Amino acid sequence: MISVKEAKNIILKATQNFGVEEIPFLKSVGRILNEDILADRDFPPFNRVSMDGIAIDFEEFSSRLRSNRQLNFKIEGIQGAGSEQITLKNSENCIEVMTGAVLPKNANTVIRYEDLEIENGFAKIIPEGICDAQNVHPKGKDGKVGDLLIKQNTKIAAAEIGVLATVGKSKVKVAKQPKILIISTGDELVGVDEIPLEHQIRRSNVFTLVSLLERLHIPSEAAHITDDKPILKQKIATYLQEYDVLLFSGAVSKGKFDFLPQVFDKLGVEKLFHKIAQRPGKPFFYGKTDKCNVFGFPGNPISTFVNCLAYFYPWYYKSVGVEVEEETAILAEDFAFKPNLTYFLQVKLSYKFGHLVATPITGNGSGDLASLVNADAFIQLPNDKNEFKSGEVFPIIRYR
Amino acid sequence: MISVKEAKNIILKATQNFGVEEIPFLKSVGRILNEDILADRDFPPFNRVSMDGIAIDFEEFSSRLRSNRQLNFKIEGIQGAGSEQITLKNSENCIEVMTGAVLPKNANTVIRYEDLEIENGFAKIIPEGICDAQNVHPKGKDGKVGDLLIKQNTKIAAAEIGVLATVGKSKVKVAKQPKILIISTGDELVGVDEIPLEHQIRRSNVFTLVSLLERLHIPSEAAHITDDKPILKQKIATYLQEYDVLLFSGAVSKGKFDFLPQVFDKLGVEKLFHKIAQRPGKPFFYGKTDKCNVFGFPGNPISTFVNCLAYFYPWYYKSVGVEVEEETAILAEDFAFKPNLTYFLQVKLSYKFGHLVATPITGNGSGDLASLVNADAFIQLPNDKNEFKSGEVFPIIRYR
Repeated sequence: MISVKEAKNIILKATQNFGVEEIPFLKSVGRILNEDILADRDFPPFNRVSMDGIAIDFEEFSSRLRSNRQLNFKIEGIQGAGSEQITLKNSENCIEVMTGAVLPKNANTVIRYEDLEIENGFAKIIPEGICDAQNVHPKGKDGKVGDLLIKQNTKIAAAEIGVLATVGKSKVKVAKQPKILIISTGDELVGVDEIPLEHQIRRSNVFTLVSLLERLHIPSEAAHITDDKPILKQKIATYLQEYDVLLFSGAVSKGKFDFLPQVFDKLGVEKLFHKIAQRPGKPFFYGKTDKCNVFGFPGNPISTFVNCLAYFYPWYYKSVGVEVEEETAILAEDFAFKPNLTYFLQVKLSYKFGHLVATPITGNGSGDLASLVNADAFIQLPNDKNEFKSGEVFPIIRYR
Repeated sequence: MISVKEAKNIILKATQNFGVEEIPFLKSVGRILNEDILADRDFPPFNRVSMDGIAIDFEEFSSRLRSNRQLNFKIEGIQGAGSEQITLKNSENCIEVMTGAVLPKNANTVIRYEDLEIENGFAKIIPEGICDAQNVHPKGKDGKVGDLLIKQNTKIAAAEIGVLATVGKSKVKVAKQPKILIISTGDELVGVDEIPLEHQIRRSNVFTLVSLLERLHIPSEAAHITDDKPILKQKIATYLQEYDVLLFSGAVSKGKFDFLPQVFDKLGVEKLFHKIAQRPGKPFFYGKTDKCNVFGFPGNPISTFVNCLAYFYPWYYKSVGVEVEEETAILAEDFAFKPNLTYFLQVKLSYKFGHLVATPITGNGSGDLASLVNADAFIQLPNDKNEFKSGEVFPIIRYR
């Protein structure tokens, strides 16, 4: 039995490259960028008016101010956003300008309407606090053509979508998603639409796994195989050829019908580990072939859930090139856990004065799916002690 | 000009009810549950074996232990998961049992394989630390039939999907999503696939808004209207009839072509406010008709972005019945902001010992879309002071 840390190291060494694909930028939210995004021109691409008002020559304004002359500027024209640049012909005049417009030629400063009185085609400036070049967003100030705007391996969100649109990347290169099959086993399982007999329960792990993958924008397929060794062997042999990743739920423990480890062995799946010193989810099997990664999660609902988050997620992120920062939280109550195992304790998170506080939600063991609903995350309590005090800080794994 | 707090209060009073719809449970991730989910039977539905091993009568075991008799139990049969309950016929014997199986009749305690030696059809128990009723997850322990498992108005995530599957809710009632149209204005804007002339830029706000709505699992449509008053009036008149919500970007400030406030007025949109004492995003217009809510975001990229997060998001959550906890973070550096306005400062978040730390990312003003890429959130600095010290705590709005 290996430690949580060893298990993670093994998994992170066995990452896969799923390749690259080009997709419409608006479909790329949640995907991992596989190219650097550079500015296609200066940002802004022209001296951009950033307030509605008038554009003037500041030299003229300050010379009038010094000599106490009137501050009335005749309005020569209008420069709207989206119009070609016009020219301030006479530096004693001004041009009305709109936010987003090109600053007119020969003008250098914008006075907002709030600081003006406009009458009979003249704008009179209220002189307090007017500075040279104000309210102009200079060409290239945010970035020069060729500047790196978004780094490769960024997870694309709404902010990136705006930048992609701005630089005209209507198609974008992203890491391809792995092709994943989720397989449940267990003859006690019936479909969601069925009425289970007394000794049966409905399938659920396969659907929580589908949802956990959906959070990563990975589509997946699902299958169920009966606890029959020849059938398992035959079907899994095919799946190992067809998919990048197989996620199993169940049949990896010590039970008489827990055939998966034997079947994997027969099919040439290299076992990288089987069993981790943790609770829940101890009998986790992890192995691989040349082309397929095999995650064999124990079948208890919380075991499957926590192992997917604690092992599959980091494996996926490393595979597609994303670095994920570890999050930590402060334990809100004393907690004791005797066995010499890392404990993934369900917690409810709350925010208090910039502190992330984790309150234990005690369920009824690894079969108690309903208790997951009342929590937001697992806090990872190390195996080198048994008493965990309120106020101590540990890593967390969120699932909301 | 009203305060951020007043603006939020006005918006939260104008929420809408979009109705209810029933959808397949596996499509419901991210949606808001509109019914209570109750247990359809006890959880677990039977006395459930929670370890692979043998089931015995504890009375027999402890009587042998007391009288120093041998602890060999003859194996009478196997109870697999998914099989009908069998009976331990002779209390001197045992039945092999698998995780997830029904506990056999007349047995009450499960001994794991780890604590057994099995030979010639007999299981010999290693007697240390065996307790009455161990490794049995009793019927109804996690919940009784009729118990509330998921409350109405919960945002559905992977954990809820598992529970919905377990109780057989293949279809589930959720709050309907609003029908939303996003409308950009501004004659300087061209399409993402076009090469802009020098005085033009590509549309981007409409796509960031699409993505920000996608985060809420709201599909949306987008339109662009030229800065022409009669055309605006005609099109918006139709849109007000057809959509629950209109999100505008641009044309709400003081510019000559900022026609929207006048057009709204002409079309009978009740103005609830126009302008908030904040930066960025000050000229935000908010109004409504009987059937439509109108959010007029200022056109600068960061203004649109922050107003959608700070006002539309809470409005939506309140409309569909979800309570959202306010998150706070600790400012990592001193920061000064002179104007008497609430400032939404872009920050990069990091986790240090259970503390959520916000480091300011200083961009080049509200036009600097690229700077959003380098941040994760806005920290909301109040308008009642000008100096904000490292270590002080303020609310944040995440966008990743």
